[in-house]
Amino acid sequence: MALIDMLFGGKKKTASVAKERLQIILAHERSDRTTSKPDFLNDLQKDLVQVISKYIQIHPNDIKVNLDRQDNLEVLEVKIEMPESELRAKPGGQ
Amino acid sequence: MALIDMLFGGKKKTASVAKERLQIILAHERSDRTTSKPDFLNDLQKDLVQVISKYIQIHPNDIKVNLDRQDNLEVLEVKIEMPESELRAKPGGQ
Repeated sequence: MALIDMLFGGKKKTASVAKERLQIILAHERSDRTTSKPDFLNDLQKDLVQVISKYIQIHPNDIKVNLDRQDNLEVLEVKIEMPESELRAKPGGQ
Repeated sequence: MALIDMLFGGKKKTASVAKERLQIILAHERSDRTTSKPDFLNDLQKDLVQVISKYIQIHPNDIKVNLDRQDNLEVLEVKIEMPESELRAKPGGQ
């Protein structure tokens, strides 16, 4: 799978770095017919962070968001890096 | 951005195809300390589909899920292809 090598900027083997990282890529390709429809990726991003908060503790400072547009393709990239001290699973998450 | 070219299997310019596609890639890199912690990507995937259903109509048949593991990296890929007939934004979504 070539895509796997693109994640985290291609530096995936950082076993020595005591960090936990989460990368979310949301790509939305719209057909021509729906080009005028406002895209929902921005709103979706907020929901995503909320959903992920169920499983891991996320600090707003740890989140980097990038939105890319190319023709009828819209790509939302959310990167979350958690320092080691924050690595604790939330008890309620399942 | 090189990553953008990897999405949808590299075929992003399908303006002539009347389809709407959504691709979600969730990559979780765990630090060594947390390797024993059960991963949450599978549960998260269900929540994600639920959240996205707020914005667009998703049929279970339209969803393809692929889970990849490589060392301490776990990659969940969710592809959603919607036939043109299903391309209608949900009124409640915002």
